Amino acid sequence: MKDYFKLHEWKIIEEGFDPQENRMVESIMSLGNGHMGMRGNFAEQYSGDSLQGTYIAGVYYPDKTVVGWWKVGYPEYYAKVPNATNFIGIDVEINGEPLDLAHWQVNEFRRELDMKEGYLFRSFVAENEEGLKIRVKSRRFLSMACREVGALQYTIEPVNRDIELQLTPYLDGTITNEDANYDEIFWEAMEAEADASPRKNCGQGFLKIKTRKSHFQVATAMEYELSIPATTLTSQCEQKYVSNQLSLSLTAGEEVTLNKYMAVTTSRDYEGEEIDRQAKKKAVEAKESGWQQLFQQHAAAWEQIWQEGDIEIEGDVAAQQGIRYNIFQLNQTYTGHDPRLNIGPKGFTGEKYGGATYWDTEAYCLPFYLNTRDNEIARNLLLYRYRHLEKARENAAKLGLEGALYPMVTMNGEECHNEWEITFEEIHRNAAIVYAIYNYIKHTGEKDYLAEYGMEVIAEIARFWEDRAHFNPRRNKYMILGVTGPNEYENNVHNNWYTNRMAVWCLEYALETIEYLKEEKPAVMQELWNELGLSAGELEKWRDMIDKMYYPYAEEFEVFEQQDGYLDKKLLTVEDIPAEDLPLHQNWSWDRILRSCFVKQADVLQGLYFLSDQYDISTKKLNFDFYEPRTVHESSLSPCIHSIIAAEIGYEEKAYELYLRTARLDLENVNNDTEDGLHITSMAGTWMAIVEGFAGMKVMEKEEEENILSFDPFIPEQWESYSFKINYRGRQLKIEVTSEESTITREEGEPLQIIFAGEKSEV
Amino acid sequence: MKDYFKLHEWKIIEEGFDPQENRMVESIMSLGNGHMGMRGNFAEQYSGDSLQGTYIAGVYYPDKTVVGWWKVGYPEYYAKVPNATNFIGIDVEINGEPLDLAHWQVNEFRRELDMKEGYLFRSFVAENEEGLKIRVKSRRFLSMACREVGALQYTIEPVNRDIELQLTPYLDGTITNEDANYDEIFWEAMEAEADASPRKNCGQGFLKIKTRKSHFQVATAMEYELSIPATTLTSQCEQKYVSNQLSLSLTAGEEVTLNKYMAVTTSRDYEGEEIDRQAKKKAVEAKESGWQQLFQQHAAAWEQIWQEGDIEIEGDVAAQQGIRYNIFQLNQTYTGHDPRLNIGPKGFTGEKYGGATYWDTEAYCLPFYLNTRDNEIARNLLLYRYRHLEKARENAAKLGLEGALYPMVTMNGEECHNEWEITFEEIHRNAAIVYAIYNYIKHTGEKDYLAEYGMEVIAEIARFWEDRAHFNPRRNKYMILGVTGPNEYENNVHNNWYTNRMAVWCLEYALETIEYLKEEKPAVMQELWNELGLSAGELEKWRDMIDKMYYPYAEEFEVFEQQDGYLDKKLLTVEDIPAEDLPLHQNWSWDRILRSCFVKQADVLQGLYFLSDQYDISTKKLNFDFYEPRTVHESSLSPCIHSIIAAEIGYEEKAYELYLRTARLDLENVNNDTEDGLHITSMAGTWMAIVEGFAGMKVMEKEEEENILSFDPFIPEQWESYSFKINYRGRQLKIEVTSEESTITREEGEPLQIIFAGEKSEV
Repeated sequence: MKDYFKLHEWKIIEEGFDPQENRMVESIMSLGNGHMGMRGNFAEQYSGDSLQGTYIAGVYYPDKTVVGWWKVGYPEYYAKVPNATNFIGIDVEINGEPLDLAHWQVNEFRRELDMKEGYLFRSFVAENEEGLKIRVKSRRFLSMACREVGALQYTIEPVNRDIELQLTPYLDGTITNEDANYDEIFWEAMEAEADASPRKNCGQGFLKIKTRKSHFQVATAMEYELSIPATTLTSQCEQKYVSNQLSLSLTAGEEVTLNKYMAVTTSRDYEGEEIDRQAKKKAVEAKESGWQQLFQQHAAAWEQIWQEGDIEIEGDVAAQQGIRYNIFQLNQTYTGHDPRLNIGPKGFTGEKYGGATYWDTEAYCLPFYLNTRDNEIARNLLLYRYRHLEKARENAAKLGLEGALYPMVTMNGEECHNEWEITFEEIHRNAAIVYAIYNYIKHTGEKDYLAEYGMEVIAEIARFWEDRAHFNPRRNKYMILGVTGPNEYENNVHNNWYTNRMAVWCLEYALETIEYLKEEKPAVMQELWNELGLSAGELEKWRDMIDKMYYPYAEEFEVFEQQDGYLDKKLLTVEDIPAEDLPLHQNWSWDRILRSCFVKQADVLQGLYFLSDQYDISTKKLNFDFYEPRTVHESSLSPCIHSIIAAEIGYEEKAYELYLRTARLDLENVNNDTEDGLHITSMAGTWMAIVEGFAGMKVMEKEEEENILSFDPFIPEQWESYSFKINYRGRQLKIEVTSEESTITREEGEPLQIIFAGEKSEV
Repeated sequence: MKDYFKLHEWKIIEEGFDPQENRMVESIMSLGNGHMGMRGNFAEQYSGDSLQGTYIAGVYYPDKTVVGWWKVGYPEYYAKVPNATNFIGIDVEINGEPLDLAHWQVNEFRRELDMKEGYLFRSFVAENEEGLKIRVKSRRFLSMACREVGALQYTIEPVNRDIELQLTPYLDGTITNEDANYDEIFWEAMEAEADASPRKNCGQGFLKIKTRKSHFQVATAMEYELSIPATTLTSQCEQKYVSNQLSLSLTAGEEVTLNKYMAVTTSRDYEGEEIDRQAKKKAVEAKESGWQQLFQQHAAAWEQIWQEGDIEIEGDVAAQQGIRYNIFQLNQTYTGHDPRLNIGPKGFTGEKYGGATYWDTEAYCLPFYLNTRDNEIARNLLLYRYRHLEKARENAAKLGLEGALYPMVTMNGEECHNEWEITFEEIHRNAAIVYAIYNYIKHTGEKDYLAEYGMEVIAEIARFWEDRAHFNPRRNKYMILGVTGPNEYENNVHNNWYTNRMAVWCLEYALETIEYLKEEKPAVMQELWNELGLSAGELEKWRDMIDKMYYPYAEEFEVFEQQDGYLDKKLLTVEDIPAEDLPLHQNWSWDRILRSCFVKQADVLQGLYFLSDQYDISTKKLNFDFYEPRTVHESSLSPCIHSIIAAEIGYEEKAYELYLRTARLDLENVNNDTEDGLHITSMAGTWMAIVEGFAGMKVMEKEEEENILSFDPFIPEQWESYSFKINYRGRQLKIEVTSEESTITREEGEPLQIIFAGEKSEV
């Protein structure tokens, strides 16, 4: 799959149509604007293999859990983003025959995702059995400027004969989810209107449907205009489907263009009839402002994003295309305009994982948004968890524990996942929630966040660790038994080093922030103290846990032992695995994976990455040398962390090699599953590998009064140069690295003390 | 629920009808004869809550697996005994009104299971809204003498008015399974015949249906006769349903009796039309021999079973009823006439667990059949596994391992279960297969079994352990990582003491049996040696593993540590658990159960029970004192093992208390789940608790040339006396224990050296 798409700095280009790859390409060509998203499906009918997908952010359906063997505490449902009203559809009939690329011969086919301006273009010439040729061009976007709006332009030209054409723009709410657990229909009908204008060159439609059980209302309005008036116009209006049929005659060489404007509003943002009114109003406004203006506003918004968030790579088009694709999809998935939203591992590009949120957000995605967008956007990711604190408390209580446990997988704060070894045991996720707050404050300096929101979350998570660990009098140590660490190829282990270390770090940070607030905002802290029911005794316990936490250590190798007993395994390396056995999760039974020494994803190294300042290069080297040869990186979130550490310890080639493993993961369909949707959260990892790895960016901790930003760049020898910008405390800095030199420029804001390649200086 | 059934030495009696308890009573009143079984459903229509259940041994349906998160190696289906043709049904209409106990007022209701003669009796007087009273008596049995045959006698008498009566004896194959994973219909139609005799007092019906996918054909023939000829007789014949409608008039006080004889044959035993022919022939023969004779043959077979297998207890009717109920149900479930059959945890009494076979058979049930029935019956249990050796090899290969791994749950030798922590990791089950062979030979002295069948199984299981364990050079020990022991409240642990110990025991026994065969049957052994591909090197490896196996040990308590890290847990006792938290599996989330120290069922103690001769009383005492207070016994298989060890170490009260926990488990519906079916395999445990626990029976190992049978009886102070018989190497011995004295009598066979209460003597 390496060369399916043409290399281009700003575009993803498919030349020629391969029905076998259509699902994969549909994923790749997905559009989104944070409010909604859609796969790169055809507008006209297509009877070949396709996964029709339109998704509305924050709208979910509680799909009844499937489980073989029920355990107490399992959630009753899995919240899924349902496939929503298909609003791009335009059925096309030529001389009574449907234009369906599964049946017509397809020539000059081109599908193109333009990342610079954020639109999808497609053109082709289709020929039927009688030799009639039709040229089609279509273009569409979901507006980044006006999030509830999307637009589609569809142009048809009979190449060699006169034709009778029928165009049927429609809204279709009869869609289903392929991954529905029990083949349930997720939507029920509410309203449908299809009024045809007497002018015969324009018309509108309106459809409102509602998710069952969760009762989200989604209204979709369409307005369209035709460049040549239709000769006849009829309309169809069913419970969950509305359309207009426009008939007209075209002579050979004559073009007709249909512009279709859509607006999608939901009960998440409006109430009652206002939902309908806003959808209709916005569709009308979109039509009135016209295609050009609407598109320009949209493209301008993308220009702004690229202005701040681009990474330029010279000398390697594939790398340039790869990183831009990742940045493009991250920005399509999450725009930060709504603190009730978060990032799903597949964004709006497929049904898999149900669009729910994982710890990926805090561990991998936050730095990207923190550095490339306004602080408010990252802040909204934090607020998402703050709003779910009460549910996290309930979640801990389900497990018989105090404090708060954030869910492994969630849409609305409730746990969705139902594997005990993950749901109940992969509790390290809780530490990432605190780490994200710490990271946000370290980066932005906005300590106010603590008093307003952060402290409560930090304290309740500290309390969770307090209750979840127990004191083992036999060893005079605290221990945390029965967990799954980030390396999910170990389940129900005792004393996962990462988990124990991060639990203690949470306690340390909790004490530090309490101390800070006591001094800086005593009244606020007093109030929180009372509300949270904190006591001196409880803080004493935390200190005792910090002092006496047990950490497994492998003397023989001078490395942190991943968990108790890891060293008892057969210590092979990945090279010992026969090639045909990889990936392990597709070839080995689970017990075999579990008892092997092979690591799915960064575990001990994840801790060394998060708490980088606390470990010296020699420690990192020893641990990298021990764990990297045993890591199969069967999570797309893994290589970036290893890459960053490799870069730091001077293994530059290794850092580049690890970066390559995910840099073009979807574009080259490396895991052979891109048809299910894109690996959105891992895309942030490749950004991290360049910025934090190659460029060595970090915010040093407590060197002086304020944190100091530091860079230590190198450039892979395959590249000529790379450059990127970051936002840091009101400044915009541009970092440029070539094989000869590295420079940093301040483009906006006040002067700043930094460390660059080991030297302190002002920029 | 303690007193729902009346106490009686030989009967289980329900007086008065409680619709709320009907499902539970239906389970309790189940009948079976090894070939088939049925719940205690009503013969006439009943619209209240009921689980209609008829099951044919060895007939299964592969029901598609339900699993939330698929893992490599999971089975595609779960083999289930499908609910089969309902052949007891007789619909009753009185003056056009259906007799349905959900609508009629029920008086003088009595349902009675007679264990001595193995029949179910029911009588009642039903009254409708008009005050019409009808007396019904019914009686039925599944013949122990003629396994394919069952009979039902149904008598009706209008008490206070003349009536028009319609009786509809039928065969109904439209039945479904409540527990079907995807609501599939398991059966498809084959043939249906309903011929009415011109004589109007008798008739017949025939129905043949076939399971989908697995294609088991089941033919059911009925013949009935009526004590008064019907005035009209019509028949109904549908695809999966046949019946006759018999109408007649009765005057008040006049009785009519319908005798219905059924024969059930399957494609497991016959081919093609022979299936039909045999069913019809046997139904006709049954009718011809008549109710009395048929019943007498059946009752005589039961007399023989009780003659050999009864336990008599004096001074405690509840205990007498309880143990007889257990013995009765065990003999109904498995009769040993067919080596393709085995024992399901719920026998023929419900749908749960799908009628499949677990390690319960080898670990708990074998001793019962070994001591109370002919050797051949226990031998057939061993042959069942021998026939599945090839599938056990495939099962090991699925896990990437050499040798044979017997499935956790099976019907035909293939694994059915799909929880990785059980399916892939609860591998100790393999040892029980070898132990059963050892136990069989120790008891019967039939060493021939080794050469014919046993050696192959033993060697392939030894080979599995060889591959599954690995040598840990760091500790110079062999280890077995990632297992679930008998205590399923620990998953994926390292070095479960029981598993490691039993693995080594398997290797020891394999070496010993190879040695034995080399000496006694060198030609046979040579052939096996070649066939199995054994080598001197492989045996050397086994010896090395025996020498260097690692066993976790808790110095501080001088006990075997259940697994690595067990001592790191918070060492509470069951008394520390709040009463409302019990049973744990209904109240605690799985992670909480896993990290707690609480033991579900005998684990280390299971090993001390199996390898009793190898551990002294002091070791057993230390381990019992440590583990018993931490054992919640949330498996019904657990208390019997603890009871036997308690008896051996002189904790007589404790032994009795533990015995009581399961002695009347179903009769008192202790676990509140008897409605799902009976706990058949745990019933063998209560037998063991009396014979091996209270009476201290064991076969001493290697005291002299031949094994010596030993007893060391005590009597619980609540009892006046107890006595039982056992079969041992051609002898029948009767053991009688009172509070004053214990005696042993030889009733059949040659004199025998035994050890009785510590003294060697001849009996």
